[in-house]
Amino acid sequence: MKKEEDFSEWYNEIVELANLTDKRYPIKGMNVWTPYGWKIMRHIDTFIRQECDVTGHDEVCFPLLIPETEFQKEKDHIKGFDAEVYWVTHAGLNELDIKLLLRPTSETAMYPIFALWVRSHSDLPLKTYQIVNTFRYETKMTRAFIRVREIHFFESHTCHVDYDDAQRQVEEDFVILEQIMKRLCLPYLLLKRTDWDKFPGAFYTVGVDTLMPEGKSLQLGSIHHYKENFSRPYDIKYEAADGSMKYCHQTTFGMSERLLGAVVGVHGDDKGLALPPEIAPFQVVIIPILAKGKVEAVSAEAQKLKQELAAAGIRVVLDDKDERPGSKFYNWEIKGVPLRLELGMRDIEGGKVSYAVRLDGRKGTFDRGQVVAQVKETLETIVKQMQEGAKERMFGRIQTIESADTIPSKVVRFGWCGDPECGHAFEQKTELKLLGTPYTGENFKGKCIICGKETDKAAYAARAM
Amino acid sequence: MKKEEDFSEWYNEIVELANLTDKRYPIKGMNVWTPYGWKIMRHIDTFIRQECDVTGHDEVCFPLLIPETEFQKEKDHIKGFDAEVYWVTHAGLNELDIKLLLRPTSETAMYPIFALWVRSHSDLPLKTYQIVNTFRYETKMTRAFIRVREIHFFESHTCHVDYDDAQRQVEEDFVILEQIMKRLCLPYLLLKRTDWDKFPGAFYTVGVDTLMPEGKSLQLGSIHHYKENFSRPYDIKYEAADGSMKYCHQTTFGMSERLLGAVVGVHGDDKGLALPPEIAPFQVVIIPILAKGKVEAVSAEAQKLKQELAAAGIRVVLDDKDERPGSKFYNWEIKGVPLRLELGMRDIEGGKVSYAVRLDGRKGTFDRGQVVAQVKETLETIVKQMQEGAKERMFGRIQTIESADTIPSKVVRFGWCGDPECGHAFEQKTELKLLGTPYTGENFKGKCIICGKETDKAAYAARAM
Repeated sequence: MKKEEDFSEWYNEIVELANLTDKRYPIKGMNVWTPYGWKIMRHIDTFIRQECDVTGHDEVCFPLLIPETEFQKEKDHIKGFDAEVYWVTHAGLNELDIKLLLRPTSETAMYPIFALWVRSHSDLPLKTYQIVNTFRYETKMTRAFIRVREIHFFESHTCHVDYDDAQRQVEEDFVILEQIMKRLCLPYLLLKRTDWDKFPGAFYTVGVDTLMPEGKSLQLGSIHHYKENFSRPYDIKYEAADGSMKYCHQTTFGMSERLLGAVVGVHGDDKGLALPPEIAPFQVVIIPILAKGKVEAVSAEAQKLKQELAAAGIRVVLDDKDERPGSKFYNWEIKGVPLRLELGMRDIEGGKVSYAVRLDGRKGTFDRGQVVAQVKETLETIVKQMQEGAKERMFGRIQTIESADTIPSKVVRFGWCGDPECGHAFEQKTELKLLGTPYTGENFKGKCIICGKETDKAAYAARAM
Repeated sequence: MKKEEDFSEWYNEIVELANLTDKRYPIKGMNVWTPYGWKIMRHIDTFIRQECDVTGHDEVCFPLLIPETEFQKEKDHIKGFDAEVYWVTHAGLNELDIKLLLRPTSETAMYPIFALWVRSHSDLPLKTYQIVNTFRYETKMTRAFIRVREIHFFESHTCHVDYDDAQRQVEEDFVILEQIMKRLCLPYLLLKRTDWDKFPGAFYTVGVDTLMPEGKSLQLGSIHHYKENFSRPYDIKYEAADGSMKYCHQTTFGMSERLLGAVVGVHGDDKGLALPPEIAPFQVVIIPILAKGKVEAVSAEAQKLKQELAAAGIRVVLDDKDERPGSKFYNWEIKGVPLRLELGMRDIEGGKVSYAVRLDGRKGTFDRGQVVAQVKETLETIVKQMQEGAKERMFGRIQTIESADTIPSKVVRFGWCGDPECGHAFEQKTELKLLGTPYTGENFKGKCIICGKETDKAAYAARAM
């Protein structure tokens, strides 16, 4: 499995070898969450919940099924999803009067109820989120975590008194995002999508993109300002302090199991997964090195070591199966456990514990007496290393270009005057997808790559996964 | 709202007043989990996860949709669910070749994959669980948490080498159940269902029933021994130590959001909800009693008190809204917060904190210096009180009868020889549902209520919710 040679094949192989998911379920694109993959995803969900909770979002859970009549209220929205929804037409032995669809996202499930919840300005802001599965009938080739038909999904939905307050929410979403991405050690770009690529129904969309090793971009999430685009058709209005009735301004923020796909793709290597310590089901694996006549002494000490680490809140597994250590090393490397501890008679006698770091293979010894502190410190170092390494690799894949005639096999950055005509011309000429322009000002001075007009706007383009 | 006068009406009113759910979603029986209701349900889920984890179950998550072809493999099972499944027939603009159904329960989703996971005796026991939503097209009248069409559901599924090992799992499930029910302060009966009432496909079913105030029984969960009933059609077999191929024996254990419905019904009273402290979103509410000129001093002290309690791991809310204390008392009583603390200038000067217990309305004062310990102790006392009170009430609703001619408006216990004919005759005569016989030996000596034969078996019957 060579990541550099064939990323696609490497990815599929790693996902299977590490047993992150089981793709043999008899519906294409609907995969089984295995215990190992699900543990990682649940850690990610926990971080999302923490960040949402501290910023005053309430967790809710809305029904899966949406009546066709509710779905049709926002015209652009239905056009955007029409070709990819699953339809429930029968229940028991009856044909339903009104067809029901499986949520592809929950605007049209939530907003009829928001219209009941929001009455007065004192009900605002209304900040909610849910973590549920959504359903999209993908026609493109499916890929575990990255393009699936049942999607593990986070979505926050908020209502505000006006445009500016919704805008403040968008900015808060950036902070939430940054907290989560730091823990996943994932670098990303915040790009304001072009008008022809924004979310169906949004006023504007900011995409959260990371770059995969093969030079393709992967959208990990998106943050939308809806303005009054949904509150009008769904009649979400409130009585202002002056007694007048006003429509809410709304925002949403969505992310999915793609976060896990990105972790696999960004951090893994030819030996397998490399998991950021904060989401690793096991942060440390202990492998006892058993020599004849010393089995019991080493086993007892390994147990003790495990208990010490566990008591300090470190997620640790002791692999005392009857197998060669080398084969254990190999298996836990595939699984991406950040830190391996080895404990043999020689270590015990010397008051040491041997270690090996999954990320870069470096080895050494800890002092038995200070092992808890040293393990914690090493895990923290690994987090920093992963954050910095991934960031460096991502920015190394971006190339600023001045002509659309020859396109390197990388993500490109270039001047764009902002005119849709120039944007379309660029996309047509290069067959790349125009990802958008940096949401927060990036210093740029140059010429539009198509029309040559002076511009201070950079745009990014890539092949999208 | 009088619980004793009209339980049904009381229940619906309480659920709405406490804002546990929103039933205005435009599909009947599919309700919205509001922040308050969802917080309680998530505490319940957390307890279930803890108990499953310590007993070595792995959490998984299987797809929602099941191909019709897989569903049809176990004949009794499909017969049991045929009239209540939702069918997905179209995706995007296409009609599907193979219809998909929304899981009513996950046997037929999981077992084709279990057939791939289980190869050898060393893969056994396989112990898994998931917490997902299931879907049943209920034709009876719906009721929040108790009879809904989208059901928040826990299901464990296990595979074993033989009947006895599966039987041990059933016994372990009883232990898991007891741990959870203790925290919810819910009493229950473990009744082996009659053969004509067992789960479709099961070898035997043990129902977990509690009794509601109006004298009806409510099934809160069920535990099933499947023997080889599913492993044969789904081909789940393993290589035994002697090289022979054998079919697994399987068990399942299911519970649902009915647990929350039972908490409402069993513990609530005419003032509203009464939540067991372990699942209450807020265990303590602090209400400052503000007198003119003392507002700042009292507010500051209330904040300090809140922080002390929160630091000790107590879930606490400070209600400092500009409202009369009496109206706050009323609202938090409806919400069922177990303990109310009041803090006025007189309390502060006297080094005291006033309290009121939701369950029985008793009042008193804590010493300000020992308030954390005293709050904890009081919450523990409340748990015991709720457990014992509910148990006493439940057993008070059961009456042992010797004739089927006049049936009291209670749950009845009576002799039954075990013959299905006598069982059917009893059900027909009394219009009660025969719930089954106690799973663990209960001392009984008497005569079958129908045929008069001597029997040492008691049976229970009730109107079911």
